[in-house]
Amino acid sequence: MKISVDAMGGDHGPSVILGGCELILARRPDIHFLLYGDEAKIAEVLKNLPRLSKSSTVIHCAVAIAMDDKPSQALRSGRGKSSMWRSVEAVKTGEASVAVSAGNTGALMAMSKFCLRTLAAIERPAIAALWPTMKGESVVLDVGATIGADAQQLVDFAVMGGAMARALFHLDKPTVGLLNIGVEEVKGLDEVRTAGAMLREANLPMIAYGGFVEGDDIGQGKVDVVVTEGFAGNIALKTAEGTAKQVGSYLRAAMSRTIMARIGYLFARSAFNRLREKLDPRKLNGGVFLGLNGIVIKSHGGTDAEGFASALDLAYDMVRNDLQAKIREGLEEYHRGRFGGLEPEQERMS
Amino acid sequence: MKISVDAMGGDHGPSVILGGCELILARRPDIHFLLYGDEAKIAEVLKNLPRLSKSSTVIHCAVAIAMDDKPSQALRSGRGKSSMWRSVEAVKTGEASVAVSAGNTGALMAMSKFCLRTLAAIERPAIAALWPTMKGESVVLDVGATIGADAQQLVDFAVMGGAMARALFHLDKPTVGLLNIGVEEVKGLDEVRTAGAMLREANLPMIAYGGFVEGDDIGQGKVDVVVTEGFAGNIALKTAEGTAKQVGSYLRAAMSRTIMARIGYLFARSAFNRLREKLDPRKLNGGVFLGLNGIVIKSHGGTDAEGFASALDLAYDMVRNDLQAKIREGLEEYHRGRFGGLEPEQERMS
Repeated sequence: MKISVDAMGGDHGPSVILGGCELILARRPDIHFLLYGDEAKIAEVLKNLPRLSKSSTVIHCAVAIAMDDKPSQALRSGRGKSSMWRSVEAVKTGEASVAVSAGNTGALMAMSKFCLRTLAAIERPAIAALWPTMKGESVVLDVGATIGADAQQLVDFAVMGGAMARALFHLDKPTVGLLNIGVEEVKGLDEVRTAGAMLREANLPMIAYGGFVEGDDIGQGKVDVVVTEGFAGNIALKTAEGTAKQVGSYLRAAMSRTIMARIGYLFARSAFNRLREKLDPRKLNGGVFLGLNGIVIKSHGGTDAEGFASALDLAYDMVRNDLQAKIREGLEEYHRGRFGGLEPEQERMS
Repeated sequence: MKISVDAMGGDHGPSVILGGCELILARRPDIHFLLYGDEAKIAEVLKNLPRLSKSSTVIHCAVAIAMDDKPSQALRSGRGKSSMWRSVEAVKTGEASVAVSAGNTGALMAMSKFCLRTLAAIERPAIAALWPTMKGESVVLDVGATIGADAQQLVDFAVMGGAMARALFHLDKPTVGLLNIGVEEVKGLDEVRTAGAMLREANLPMIAYGGFVEGDDIGQGKVDVVVTEGFAGNIALKTAEGTAKQVGSYLRAAMSRTIMARIGYLFARSAFNRLREKLDPRKLNGGVFLGLNGIVIKSHGGTDAEGFASALDLAYDMVRNDLQAKIREGLEEYHRGRFGGLEPEQERMS
């Protein structure tokens, strides 16, 4: 499997990115990396990475997109030549099966849309995140690709999120909920209510529509896929990350305040380690861009090598389990129910 | 101080509600309660509550609003005669300084708006919640009164939330942030950006506008007041509650899995108790309805007596620290800056 990597993305540059590639090669030796970025800097890091040196091809790019470049600026300065653009382009040309970048989200989404284009049936791409729940994991989308979504776009998100859950969790018919608020009568956003009616009516064989869910249902794992527009989705995701960190800090403070607590901590250290692992944000790193002609994975910019390896794991799984085919199946099925199917020429899939 | 209470509200009815009143009387013996509800049921509970029996007046109401009544239905069946309506009406007539109900949010907001009316300068009321942070507490609004808000409404929320922070945290000039998402360039919702520009320009002496905040900044306590529209605000609040519960479950599971962990737990028990107290959702119970001609506090419907007592505490503080006067000051100041002040007849304040 060929994975293209924007070696210059992220807060810490090539050392973390390539370190992550080296890590995952131990688990997935069948990967060959296409590394896009500054040749000299990459060579410097590769010296200490024996596995990656053997399993990669370096493609020099003189331009790197900065973490604070605006999308339009990034497109102007980096189109065709930046490490970010070229790693995405490798998916378009078929040189790579998936692109992974820890670069800035806005620029990566702009380039991915511009380079790969959206699927014929899809108006707007979404970013899907994996959310740790009491039952395992759920897919939550959109977590910030765009602000606002009409009912049709929410239905598209449901179909694509369902495809991702089928690919990742190996479920035949994942449950899908629409994120809403429980104000009686009003019962939340019009678009959300309309999308709910559409999903109920479509009665799709590949997803089980489970109605509305509220913010506290996400972490309970009430449904496999939570669908919302990007503003609320991004706020929900960041709020959950912030709260987990906050509770973690309280716990650390409580366990170091008294001698007894410190002794207790020593006894229970392995339990705390397990808990820390469970809450480790690096373990579920990677937003999946859905709705494009090709797969692009966005890693957290501030992650370390271990975290970047998690994003690569996700990329690997998405290709192995044929995410794009499952999205195509889901969309075909949905549109067949509505119009008797898509015209073949509408389906420019990768 | 007279507090009117909807004795029939909440999932558990009068026993919890009146139990909460009894609890707070131990701390605040200067309260006199007006208890609205089914006389017989209230009398039955009051038998075992000596303090409350002495410090309350019972007003019989034959109608109780159910937790799943729609707001319109509640208004039709309960206007003028339900325990919920009459407890709010007591604020309008001046018999009580504040009303507290654990009844259903939609009905309570509809009745509060209908009975008390919004302040002259305010188009829409908001529900403000207290959010536990790394630094103490912050005010977050709107957490679900209405969906969507234009820039002017967000500015009004900022002014009212600032007033609440001044009343509750005794700050001269609380910091205020607008909840947004960090998509570069787009930089979130248009309304939010416009509201930000308006707040910056207004340069109010009573609040310090601190720019945009993201979901993970809320729990860090980056600002004293977080302003957002009700859909995103409600989802953020419920997501945080859900995440705190989820991490708590992980912790309990981890601490009971092995013998060593259980021994550790025994040593650190007081630390865990402190942590549990810190995370206790009952301690910060109560949404404050802002923007009406009078104060109404909404308690969680599922709370116990201790939790209801916290909502009463909040009600007490809001009256003692003159929330309404501070809101009036804030709004006057804001409008003076814009139009040279409000006309006196526009200010129908309680």
